[in-house]
Amino acid sequence: MMNRMTHPLFSKHRETLDAALTAIASREYYSAYPESPSPRVYGETAADDGKAAFEALLGKTFEIDQPTAPRHVTTEDSPFGIDLGITYPASDPTELINAAEAAWPAWRAADPATRAGVCLEILHRIHSDVFTLANAVHATTGQAFVMAFQAGGPHALDRGLEAVAYGYAEQTRVPATAYWEKPGGKAGPLAMEKTYHVVPRGVGLVIGCNTFPTWNSYPGLFASLVTGNPVIVKPHPRAVLPLALTVRHARAVLADAGFDPNLVTLAAENPEDGIAEIVAMHPSIKIIDFTGSNSFGEWLEFNARQAQVYTEKAGVNTIVIDSTDNPKGMFNNIAFTLCLYSGQMCTTTQAIFIPRDGIETPDGRLSADDVKAGIVKSVAKLTSDDARAVELIGAIVSPEVVQRVDDAASLGEVLLPSRTVEHPAYPKARVRSPLILGVDAGSSDAYASECFGPVTFLVTTDDTDASLAVVRDVVGREGALTMGVYSTQDGVLDAAVATAIDVNTHLSQNLTAGVFVNQSAAYSDFHGSGGNAAANAALTDGAYVANRFRIVQSRKHVEPRTAE
Amino acid sequence: MMNRMTHPLFSKHRETLDAALTAIASREYYSAYPESPSPRVYGETAADDGKAAFEALLGKTFEIDQPTAPRHVTTEDSPFGIDLGITYPASDPTELINAAEAAWPAWRAADPATRAGVCLEILHRIHSDVFTLANAVHATTGQAFVMAFQAGGPHALDRGLEAVAYGYAEQTRVPATAYWEKPGGKAGPLAMEKTYHVVPRGVGLVIGCNTFPTWNSYPGLFASLVTGNPVIVKPHPRAVLPLALTVRHARAVLADAGFDPNLVTLAAENPEDGIAEIVAMHPSIKIIDFTGSNSFGEWLEFNARQAQVYTEKAGVNTIVIDSTDNPKGMFNNIAFTLCLYSGQMCTTTQAIFIPRDGIETPDGRLSADDVKAGIVKSVAKLTSDDARAVELIGAIVSPEVVQRVDDAASLGEVLLPSRTVEHPAYPKARVRSPLILGVDAGSSDAYASECFGPVTFLVTTDDTDASLAVVRDVVGREGALTMGVYSTQDGVLDAAVATAIDVNTHLSQNLTAGVFVNQSAAYSDFHGSGGNAAANAALTDGAYVANRFRIVQSRKHVEPRTAE
Repeated sequence: MMNRMTHPLFSKHRETLDAALTAIASREYYSAYPESPSPRVYGETAADDGKAAFEALLGKTFEIDQPTAPRHVTTEDSPFGIDLGITYPASDPTELINAAEAAWPAWRAADPATRAGVCLEILHRIHSDVFTLANAVHATTGQAFVMAFQAGGPHALDRGLEAVAYGYAEQTRVPATAYWEKPGGKAGPLAMEKTYHVVPRGVGLVIGCNTFPTWNSYPGLFASLVTGNPVIVKPHPRAVLPLALTVRHARAVLADAGFDPNLVTLAAENPEDGIAEIVAMHPSIKIIDFTGSNSFGEWLEFNARQAQVYTEKAGVNTIVIDSTDNPKGMFNNIAFTLCLYSGQMCTTTQAIFIPRDGIETPDGRLSADDVKAGIVKSVAKLTSDDARAVELIGAIVSPEVVQRVDDAASLGEVLLPSRTVEHPAYPKARVRSPLILGVDAGSSDAYASECFGPVTFLVTTDDTDASLAVVRDVVGREGALTMGVYSTQDGVLDAAVATAIDVNTHLSQNLTAGVFVNQSAAYSDFHGSGGNAAANAALTDGAYVANRFRIVQSRKHVEPRTAE
Repeated sequence: MMNRMTHPLFSKHRETLDAALTAIASREYYSAYPESPSPRVYGETAADDGKAAFEALLGKTFEIDQPTAPRHVTTEDSPFGIDLGITYPASDPTELINAAEAAWPAWRAADPATRAGVCLEILHRIHSDVFTLANAVHATTGQAFVMAFQAGGPHALDRGLEAVAYGYAEQTRVPATAYWEKPGGKAGPLAMEKTYHVVPRGVGLVIGCNTFPTWNSYPGLFASLVTGNPVIVKPHPRAVLPLALTVRHARAVLADAGFDPNLVTLAAENPEDGIAEIVAMHPSIKIIDFTGSNSFGEWLEFNARQAQVYTEKAGVNTIVIDSTDNPKGMFNNIAFTLCLYSGQMCTTTQAIFIPRDGIETPDGRLSADDVKAGIVKSVAKLTSDDARAVELIGAIVSPEVVQRVDDAASLGEVLLPSRTVEHPAYPKARVRSPLILGVDAGSSDAYASECFGPVTFLVTTDDTDASLAVVRDVVGREGALTMGVYSTQDGVLDAAVATAIDVNTHLSQNLTAGVFVNQSAAYSDFHGSGGNAAANAALTDGAYVANRFRIVQSRKHVEPRTAE
């Protein structure tokens, strides 16, 4: 148990791990996985090969060797209308837990370097097949292909690597052994040798979501795995394939490295099976990572008391517009945020606050109506051409979200109606252009709780102070992952920072170029703060990894090295 | 808010902080506060001055300037029968919370270095008055004076400094600002400046215990304070003075450093007031540190959902005896552990497992009865002389514990009866010598739940495997803070380590010299693992500090430094 050999995979990936460790400390730019799907980066045939590999999966039983699967399920419903028809083994959850526990001892006894090496190899293996994954994310989430590639592939992998780096750093903060010598009096020094064992918590459960099956799951998956815990991956029934591919790669790497592949398993289910509740309450489940609804997230936090529970739920993301030196840049930047993936990112802005008397710009004062019109016009322009629009807005993840868009039109003055968009490649795709509504600050019933999907509220307030007060109130209660502010006044920016601090929400100031409030960069930007109702943890920080294992020490007397 | 000056107290104490930071990383020996109360260390008059300062407090109202105290309470009952009669202001808890929130902004906005400097100055100020504190701990806990000095003074201060070091390290893992530049294509690089704000959680509540009012409270107090949170200190009604002195020093230092002293307040109460429940459930309380009973600890964990809750409760500490190369050293070491402060340490061994067929020693085989007799004889020897005994066993913290000792005699074969000991200096002292009972492994009703106080069970098992199996079962269920093993066999030691890992309990092997299973050294030994039922957190590790604050970032575009 003590004299463990570090696996050669650690040396293979050490440079990458070191770069990630440097990046999480400096918070400077870093990426280990190129985000451009260009053939110049990935090779001439990569895209076609990935598409072919994806298509070869359709209509078949997904091949994955797991503990007894008494039955199979076919549950996906592509937002693009792609006929997936893939059948997944629905293993008995209790057998998955038993298999995880049986697989655990060797992984638990491995040193953190070995585990990091194996995790990096899993990321590497996923990356080598990233176009297959990108097609899977595209088909199951409704993200346009380039976004599915980037967010579902390299960006998700970077988030996974970031979690590995945090987990490795946390485990190695305490040395494996220490020599302790306390100066003594007449009796001479007291000396001890101490061994510090990293003791993982136990079986982890990762509950995936429909919109970002990989990006939102990889941090928890790799944080638990690198800290020595087996992981059961429970995908959303409508987005199984991206995580099925992930689990298959993970199992292959684990087996190749000499570990039991049952350290990572897939828990596919029919939606009505309610596997997540059952597994989450099992006494062997010690860690849960969840992305999804407030109701189930809060249920988990309240009920799964035997586990460390990390949740990302919903909130109300806001932008406060006070003034700008670049109205066009502001409108375009906001419009891109609202359109990207039809506002179905947990970080997309839902409410934009505009002062009743308008805003100062270099071109003179813009009235509140001008500001609203500027945003509406930019969104309309981005979405006016169907063929171009779908490459930005993608498709609507579920029929329920389409229904919500239809219902939302009554919540305010329709400034830009949502229309049905024809997808040139996918005739059966569910595509709606964004709905923009105008409301007054008093109509908080409309805008002050999450309305997931392509629905934005432009909220008129008395002034910027009032806007910030509403943000403080609404986000203080409902939580948020992101906040934006536009102002040319230092005092306003300072007040926005103060508000962001009070509601524990990350703030983007005056975004007018190629960075958007709803995007965060691994290693540099935290996703969520863990300090408001939208999430009880941040991706990724020390607190996200430090309680996935414990340190147990053993100590014994040794001869003092210091002569008396 | 951004351009904060670091307080000069940081420079004053930087060397000490750096030494502590080095020590928590190396886990080598370190102490900032000399543990010897010798006049050669503390000066000829220090002991007398401290005693006089303590005596000057007796029978009076404790002078501490706090938010409105409508009434006063006098609740202490010295185990030594010292007539304390000190009256404390019983402030309205809601006013303390309001005052803490009013005091918070400047402390929250201070940089981590400033907060660390102020915390170290508080520790320094307490240390400069450590003999007064030692008398207070002695009088209220029943610890013999030297132990009260060491555990209540320097060792507690070291635990406080350790928490400051961990909290400072955690806050400074993320830089205050970062420049982020993402290589671009034709559009050139994207550059951002990012600011990372440490955002403390909110008002902390520290709930002290009767036996170790300072040692068990300082980690939570200083972990919360250094990470920017105000702290309300709720002492045990029978051990108010040590924390009242602590709070008074803290308030003086805070005021001297230009902060609102209401960042640290004392919440004294009558036992029937139930202030802890009321304060703990207040929505403004965001962090709770508790040492005490399982029932209230579990109540807090379950009910105070708005707060981060760190608990140290009770468990069953064990020693497994398999064989030894030094029977005398083993007996003496164990006897010292059982006698020290009458077994009223949360780390004291309660159950010692002895194989039915006895153990191997260099002097030949000792029967199980010989082993029991060896322990009993050593304990009897340490406690046979009343005047010497009281300097080791101290006094019994409460009448309930005396009653428990009396009741426990029926739980097994009395191998060493508890007797009433006369304290030469304190005629009214509650002093009992340790009770040692013999039971069979089957009598788990007797030994398998915590029996706080000077009661030890010597448990006969079939063999060492059976002993370890019982430990695994009992500690797996009840938790523990410490475990010991004596064996000359590597295989047995390895099995003990494996058991300790499985039950997340720190293990001491073959202690026969000047280190005892119930003692842990700050910076090197973790107190508790946070991985079993005895405690949900370890003192002190990354997880203990990382969630007492959050990081909120703000970011904005800047001109790229890299030419296109």
